[in-house]
Amino acid sequence: MKLALPSRPVIWAVLSVAVLASAGSAVADELQTRAAALFKPIPAQPPGLAKNAVTRTRVALGKDLYFDRRLSQSQEMSCNSCHDVGMGGADLQRTSLGHKWQRGGRNAPTTFNAAFNFVQFWDGRAKDLAEQAGGPMQNPVEMANTPAAAVATLKSIPGYLPKFRAAFPADKDPITFDNITVAIAAFEATLITPDAPFDKYLRGDANALSAEQKNGLRVFIDSGCASCHRGVNVGGDMYAKFGLVRAPDGNIRPDNDKGRLAISKSPADEFVYKVPTLRNINLTAPYFHSGEVRDLRQAVTIMGEAQLGKGLTAAQVDSIVAFLGALTGTHPQITYPVLPPSAANTPTPPYP
Amino acid sequence: MKLALPSRPVIWAVLSVAVLASAGSAVADELQTRAAALFKPIPAQPPGLAKNAVTRTRVALGKDLYFDRRLSQSQEMSCNSCHDVGMGGADLQRTSLGHKWQRGGRNAPTTFNAAFNFVQFWDGRAKDLAEQAGGPMQNPVEMANTPAAAVATLKSIPGYLPKFRAAFPADKDPITFDNITVAIAAFEATLITPDAPFDKYLRGDANALSAEQKNGLRVFIDSGCASCHRGVNVGGDMYAKFGLVRAPDGNIRPDNDKGRLAISKSPADEFVYKVPTLRNINLTAPYFHSGEVRDLRQAVTIMGEAQLGKGLTAAQVDSIVAFLGALTGTHPQITYPVLPPSAANTPTPPYP
Repeated sequence: MKLALPSRPVIWAVLSVAVLASAGSAVADELQTRAAALFKPIPAQPPGLAKNAVTRTRVALGKDLYFDRRLSQSQEMSCNSCHDVGMGGADLQRTSLGHKWQRGGRNAPTTFNAAFNFVQFWDGRAKDLAEQAGGPMQNPVEMANTPAAAVATLKSIPGYLPKFRAAFPADKDPITFDNITVAIAAFEATLITPDAPFDKYLRGDANALSAEQKNGLRVFIDSGCASCHRGVNVGGDMYAKFGLVRAPDGNIRPDNDKGRLAISKSPADEFVYKVPTLRNINLTAPYFHSGEVRDLRQAVTIMGEAQLGKGLTAAQVDSIVAFLGALTGTHPQITYPVLPPSAANTPTPPYP
Repeated sequence: MKLALPSRPVIWAVLSVAVLASAGSAVADELQTRAAALFKPIPAQPPGLAKNAVTRTRVALGKDLYFDRRLSQSQEMSCNSCHDVGMGGADLQRTSLGHKWQRGGRNAPTTFNAAFNFVQFWDGRAKDLAEQAGGPMQNPVEMANTPAAAVATLKSIPGYLPKFRAAFPADKDPITFDNITVAIAAFEATLITPDAPFDKYLRGDANALSAEQKNGLRVFIDSGCASCHRGVNVGGDMYAKFGLVRAPDGNIRPDNDKGRLAISKSPADEFVYKVPTLRNINLTAPYFHSGEVRDLRQAVTIMGEAQLGKGLTAAQVDSIVAFLGALTGTHPQITYPVLPPSAANTPTPPYP
C-alpha cells in the first residue's frame, strides 16, 4: 500500500515528521511515520470558523436550532433526536425513528467531526453541513416539515428575531430557511472531538497507544483499511463501493438501496457510499448504512471480506478493534440552550 | 378571602415581614404584606439536598439517567423527551407523544420546581419525585419499559456501575430500579428557577413588579385565585376540583378522565386534581390536564368561570396575565451529559 500513496498524504508525512522533530520528541519510529502520512489529528479548534462576534452568535443560534423541536412538523423532534450530543452525535437505532414513528432509510451518521467530511449524507448528496441540515427537516419520514412552515414558526417566536439579526447582520429579513441551515452548520462545526489517544500519537506521543493498539494500527494499514479510512476523520474523504471485492449479505447491504446510483444515475455508482468516519466508532453502534451490525468485531470482519477480500484472523480483528478504541476523543461540552418561548400565534403541532 | 387564610400562610406572613424588615428595605406596603402571607420565593438552592459528595454524585448520575433514552423500551425516549430542560421542563404537546407515537392521557407537567409540589402527577398518585420517576418508564404509552429491563440495560453499560457505586455507597448491588428513580429525583430537585421578578418582589424589592403586574397580583388575590394557587409554587400544595363552581366544556375537562376518583375511588374526588404550579406558566403552554387551551388569557378566563364563578373582565384577565409573566424565573444551567456507551451485550431496541 505504501507505494500507492497519493500525493497529499506524502506532503502530510513530510510536514508531520517535521512537526514531530520540532516538538522535541524522540525520532518518530517507522509506524508513527507511516501513520503521519495517512492520518491527521483532529485540530483543537473547529474548522472554518473565524473567531469573531458574528460567528459566536451564529454558533449560539445554531445550538438553539439544533435542540429546537419546533423545526419539525410535530414539534416533537429536533436535530438532537437522531444526533444526540450525549451519545456520540448519533442515536441507538438501526435506522432512525422519525415522524409518526416511521423508520428512516439509513443509519444516522454522527454529527461529530462531520465538518471534516468532504460531503454529507451516506450518499454524499449534500455538499456541506448547511445543505445537509435542510434535508431531515423536509424529509417526510424524519421531521416532515416544509421550509415555509419552519420559517413561519420561528418568525412567530419573538426571541428568535434578535438572535437571527445578530447572526446575520447584513440581512434585512434574516429568518430564512437558508440562514436556519447556515446557523445549524456553524454549531455543528463545533462538534469536534479532539485529543483521542490516536491524535496524541499522531502528534508525537509514542506511548499514547498501547502495544495492542499499535499492532492494530499496523494491521489496519497493512491490510488496506487505510486506503479508504484515512485523513483527519479516518474516513469521510472519498467514495467507495460497499462490496468492492465481495457482496455482503443482503440484510447488511439491502438490494433496494443502491447508494450513489440514485444520485448520479451512473451504473458505476451502484452500492457506492461515502466512506464513513471511524472516529468515536465505539460510541456509534450499530454499524453500516443499514445499521444491521452491532458488534464492532463483526463489522471489521465483514469489511475485511467485502472490501479487501481477506479473511482477517480473530487476532487481527481484535487488534484492529483495539486500535479503533483509540479513536474516541473528547466530547464537546455543551450547555443545554434555553429556547425562546412560543407565542400565542406560534403554529401548533397537529393533534392527535 | 383574607379571613379564610389557613394558618401556615399566616406564619409565613409574620416571617416574611420580619425578613423584609431585616433586609433593610422600605416598609412593605399593604400588597407586599398580603403577598408575603400567601406566597414564598423560590430558594436559591435546591430543596432537600444536603451538600455532600454523595449528593453530588447522585445528582450527576440522575442527570445522566434523565437524558438516557436507553431507559425506554425503544431506546428512543428519555425523561427529557417530555420534560425538555430547554423549554420550561415540559413539551409543546397537548398530551405527550410516547412509545410508537401513542398519545399520553394528560398534558406533561413541568419538572421545573416539581420538588416543591406536595405530591406528583396531575392526580397526585406519586408521593414524591422518585415515585413519580418510575411511572413513565413503565407506562405502555410512554417509555413502555419494565423495571427488570431497565436494570438489565444499565447493568450491561460498563460506565454506569462506578457511577451507581459512588451515588449509593452503602449498596452492594447498587443498580436497582429504586436507585434509578432516587437518582433521577435528586437531579430533578435541582431543576428550580429562582429569581423571577415575583421572587424579588416577595424578598422586598417593590419595583420588581410593574404597576400592571401589581394590579394583576391584587386581582389574583382578591378574586380568589390565590386560595388555591399559593405557596412557593403558586400552586402544587393542595387538591381542587376542576369545575368547582361550573363545569368547563367537555373538551377542556373530558368526561373520561375523572381525576383523583380513579385513585381514591371516592366520589368526592371526581374531577379533582392537584392544583398545578403557575411558575413559568408563560413557557409551558398548552394548559390544563387536557392541554386543550394554548392561550393564557383564555385559560385565566376559564378558571375564573369554572373555579370562582366569576366573569373576569378583559382588563382583569390582562392584569392577571401580566402578573403571571412575573413568575418566569431563571432556567437551571445544564451541561449536556456525556453518557456511558453501550457494550456489545447491551440489549438492542426492537426493530423495526
